[in-house]
Amino acid sequence: MSDYTPPLDDIDFVLTHLCDIEELSRLEPFTHADPATVRGVVEEAGKFMASAVAPLNHPADQQGLTLSDGVVTTPDGFKEAYAQYVDAGWGAVAFDPEYGGGGFPWVVGVALQELLTTASMAFSMGPLLTQGAIDMLQHHSSAEQKAMYLPKMLTGEWTGSMNLTEPQAGSDVGALITKAVPAADGSYRISGQKIFITFGEHDMAENIVHLVLARTPDAPPGTKGISCFIVPKFLVEDDGSPGERNGVTCVSIEHKMGIHASPTCTLVYEGAVGYLIGDENQGMRYMFTMMNNARLSVGLEGLALAERSHQQSVAFAKERLQGRAVGAEPGVQSPIIEHADVRRMLLTQKALIEAMRGLMYLNGRAIDLAQHHPDEAVRQKNAEIADLYTPLSKAWGTDMGLECTSLGIQVHGGMGYIEETGAAQHFRDARIPPIYEGTNGIQAMDLVGRKLPMRGGAVVTEHLDTMTATAEALVGSGDDDLVAVGARLVEGVAACRQATTWLIEHGLVDPNDALAGSTPYLRLLATVTGGWVLGREALAARRDGAEEPEAFRDAKVVTARFFAESLLPPSLGLVHAVTSGATPLYADSLFV
Amino acid sequence: MSDYTPPLDDIDFVLTHLCDIEELSRLEPFTHADPATVRGVVEEAGKFMASAVAPLNHPADQQGLTLSDGVVTTPDGFKEAYAQYVDAGWGAVAFDPEYGGGGFPWVVGVALQELLTTASMAFSMGPLLTQGAIDMLQHHSSAEQKAMYLPKMLTGEWTGSMNLTEPQAGSDVGALITKAVPAADGSYRISGQKIFITFGEHDMAENIVHLVLARTPDAPPGTKGISCFIVPKFLVEDDGSPGERNGVTCVSIEHKMGIHASPTCTLVYEGAVGYLIGDENQGMRYMFTMMNNARLSVGLEGLALAERSHQQSVAFAKERLQGRAVGAEPGVQSPIIEHADVRRMLLTQKALIEAMRGLMYLNGRAIDLAQHHPDEAVRQKNAEIADLYTPLSKAWGTDMGLECTSLGIQVHGGMGYIEETGAAQHFRDARIPPIYEGTNGIQAMDLVGRKLPMRGGAVVTEHLDTMTATAEALVGSGDDDLVAVGARLVEGVAACRQATTWLIEHGLVDPNDALAGSTPYLRLLATVTGGWVLGREALAARRDGAEEPEAFRDAKVVTARFFAESLLPPSLGLVHAVTSGATPLYADSLFV
Repeated sequence: MSDYTPPLDDIDFVLTHLCDIEELSRLEPFTHADPATVRGVVEEAGKFMASAVAPLNHPADQQGLTLSDGVVTTPDGFKEAYAQYVDAGWGAVAFDPEYGGGGFPWVVGVALQELLTTASMAFSMGPLLTQGAIDMLQHHSSAEQKAMYLPKMLTGEWTGSMNLTEPQAGSDVGALITKAVPAADGSYRISGQKIFITFGEHDMAENIVHLVLARTPDAPPGTKGISCFIVPKFLVEDDGSPGERNGVTCVSIEHKMGIHASPTCTLVYEGAVGYLIGDENQGMRYMFTMMNNARLSVGLEGLALAERSHQQSVAFAKERLQGRAVGAEPGVQSPIIEHADVRRMLLTQKALIEAMRGLMYLNGRAIDLAQHHPDEAVRQKNAEIADLYTPLSKAWGTDMGLECTSLGIQVHGGMGYIEETGAAQHFRDARIPPIYEGTNGIQAMDLVGRKLPMRGGAVVTEHLDTMTATAEALVGSGDDDLVAVGARLVEGVAACRQATTWLIEHGLVDPNDALAGSTPYLRLLATVTGGWVLGREALAARRDGAEEPEAFRDAKVVTARFFAESLLPPSLGLVHAVTSGATPLYADSLFV
Repeated sequence: MSDYTPPLDDIDFVLTHLCDIEELSRLEPFTHADPATVRGVVEEAGKFMASAVAPLNHPADQQGLTLSDGVVTTPDGFKEAYAQYVDAGWGAVAFDPEYGGGGFPWVVGVALQELLTTASMAFSMGPLLTQGAIDMLQHHSSAEQKAMYLPKMLTGEWTGSMNLTEPQAGSDVGALITKAVPAADGSYRISGQKIFITFGEHDMAENIVHLVLARTPDAPPGTKGISCFIVPKFLVEDDGSPGERNGVTCVSIEHKMGIHASPTCTLVYEGAVGYLIGDENQGMRYMFTMMNNARLSVGLEGLALAERSHQQSVAFAKERLQGRAVGAEPGVQSPIIEHADVRRMLLTQKALIEAMRGLMYLNGRAIDLAQHHPDEAVRQKNAEIADLYTPLSKAWGTDMGLECTSLGIQVHGGMGYIEETGAAQHFRDARIPPIYEGTNGIQAMDLVGRKLPMRGGAVVTEHLDTMTATAEALVGSGDDDLVAVGARLVEGVAACRQATTWLIEHGLVDPNDALAGSTPYLRLLATVTGGWVLGREALAARRDGAEEPEAFRDAKVVTARFFAESLLPPSLGLVHAVTSGATPLYADSLFV
């Protein structure tokens, strides 16, 4: 099946030239994370993921999971690979040293997450959900709770799960009805059913820390009456070891289109012992604080699947002989990578992947600066950037992940449709990230409903100004390729300005007008942002004294130009979709 | 699971107003096919497909196929439903009365094919391949061969299969090596291995007529040395009944991402008795004559899956309660169909479906006129139109089928990713039509390499002129909606002209420049053609004395305008991709 080669040079280029990892390493908590150290960590992580995890991905998909008497058995090799992952401590690299973390910048965690997810998305979901749970506990739990759970969760000895969804409460979290009744000892008794719980049950860790949203008896309706509880699978003894089994049972696992090796569980809570996090009725607020990180992580799944699919496609296209390419020797079959349309597909993948990676790593950098820069104004500014980039990373990243994995099948031709080839798995896996952690429609609503209104639209406008500055630098460079990229970027930013102005004006009058245009707006803004990211990479590649090999730098420029000329221009037409308003969608004659 | 309601009103609208079925019924062979009779046939077919076939689609996908000792067992109910299909004679409606066909126009066959495929794509593939084999035999086999095979194939008692692909010969058919050695009795002995043979073995019919491409001992290399043979599974006795088992065996069936109920077989031929069709070394030429029909049929799969997915999505969106729509009563969950972004997804499906249907039925009409119009000039003109539309129907139709079924999953949210819901099946099924019967990349090469050069580009230019005339009628109508549609269409056609001119000029100099832009060019031309189709429908809906209900006609206009404003404009930006040329794709720095 497909091997995985960690794209270390690409990651290093982004960390160095877009994220300025050197600047980050001068921040107080990151002084140990100098660029050379970061490079070493990323390289080691890549080696581990490629050797220990990546080979499991396809066989695990084909084998799948079993549930018997409430016990989920993961595919062959998962348990052993996870034990190695825990031993190596990869899950803790970007977390707080106080609880055993490595204290590295979040953007380094982003890089590691890309590597892990590309190795195996299904495998990565245990660590991913654990990371979300850690994030929640770090921000909102008590000192005692942190001391009890965080050290084992940071190592990965215990995993976490997030329990929001119920049959009637998916996107509409406020509709949940799971109950939490106070007990005499200050704990609560949790009863209800949760569905779609990723790694809600499995055999890879000695304990699972479920974070569960539920309602206390007198809670107000909707999102204002939701509290968040810790419900460990095994109650924790005083010495910190897992004790009595708690009242939570996995009653079924879903039969899904993809991520066959990631258990998606229905959990039944029957008077399970739960411990309140923070205050009652603050659960939704707590959830929101971890949402940027979690949504960025899901965006990374799009990037990761695209990267894996691309690597497999390039390898296949070099080996598969079919037809005769233009100019090739008569009577001999050419490797299909010599055919123009195959190259178009591969370069489309490459351009989208590099644009996604740049956007998402910048998103990670903004999270770091927002938390750790000494200057309050810089922190604030970067918090806004993280807020703005997050729906782009999540929705555009996962949409493009699906697109790239679809191209991966297409490059394989008929072989791509056969499961043994492995190309189909990436595409099947890629169909869920646009849905979970807030559907991409909800990301678009978040963009126009929450992010665009920040400071009366100024956060978006400043981002557009930043892109204009890059476009001007490109146009002013005197380099033909860079000028061409800059010219298209100028047009792209202009389209974004036009759409932005319309949304700000009309959204105030009728929110549905803005909502109707939200998805095309997100696509437009993200695509132009992708063009900007690659424009910055092209500038870096052509700078004086560049150290990277010439071919590597040339490829960056070619890729940026291809994106600017072939992938960016169609997005400009989305302005019409953004500014059409809601009226046509609500015509009485439709869907009767 | 999802029910299926045949879209009879939509089909009737297209047959009446786009295809002028009344004009077709005045042609000599179609005088019995008056509009009322056609309507009756389509309605009856719809009833049959919805009741006998559609309910099998999802359970059959989940059950799948088994192969044991060379025998393929189809899912529960397939055999019985197929027997009913044969009894009703649905497979013969559009074929020659001389062999038992109904002698209806091909476009009526197109309608029936849509209905059958929407009911179950996997089930439809037996009849589809049989239809292809009939087509080949009608055009190229001897009178004796026709008499022996066609009557039973038209009823469907015997099915057909097409045997082109071998491991080293996929898109590159000329690389095939299966051997055909002449025997003393005038027949041949066929030996070799064929892969990806749809319904190459199954338990639904008493015989299977394999059409097999192979090389005779002295054949020249490449496509010029390919001959086509009839290889029946059971040799036919003098009385026409199936006799001795021929030397062809199914050794494996593929484990595919979708169409789980359609057997994809590896067939081994070991000295099997084969009968030459026509002359030696003419196999590829024969194959080309049936290609328009077969490719249109595959395009219809995109339409069909989109329609099924859309119907299921609308039904789900009306029932599923989540969140509160803008303006809805506080404290009550709204059906998600009230949310703007869900409506956007549903209307996108609807607009694409209706554009596809119009294009494909017009494609069918052109095939009818090309074969049966008394005026040679009209026949020639329509043959060209069919040639031009075919790659658009196939590639754009199947790309949009994938897009629409992806939206279908998205509308379902998390439920869409669970196989029990059935939304995922349509998407999995939809991933193969862009690949087989000539990958969509090959369709694009066909468009720029064979179709665009017809009469020095005049066939394309005349199509653009036809679209301009419609755009002018829309703009001149004085109706706000129609004017808006016309305005966007004018821009669309202008973009097509620009791209067409560039391709004609540059394709002559370097074929790779044209090939590099072929896929974006096909997307551009097809999207604008889709806008034109809907523009024509909108004009028909707003004509004086229209008989269709007002809401139905209003929906046509709203849909055309939505397509023109939201879906068409992004395609204009593809001009840049078309005119970028091959140089960037072939940069030395890429894929090293």
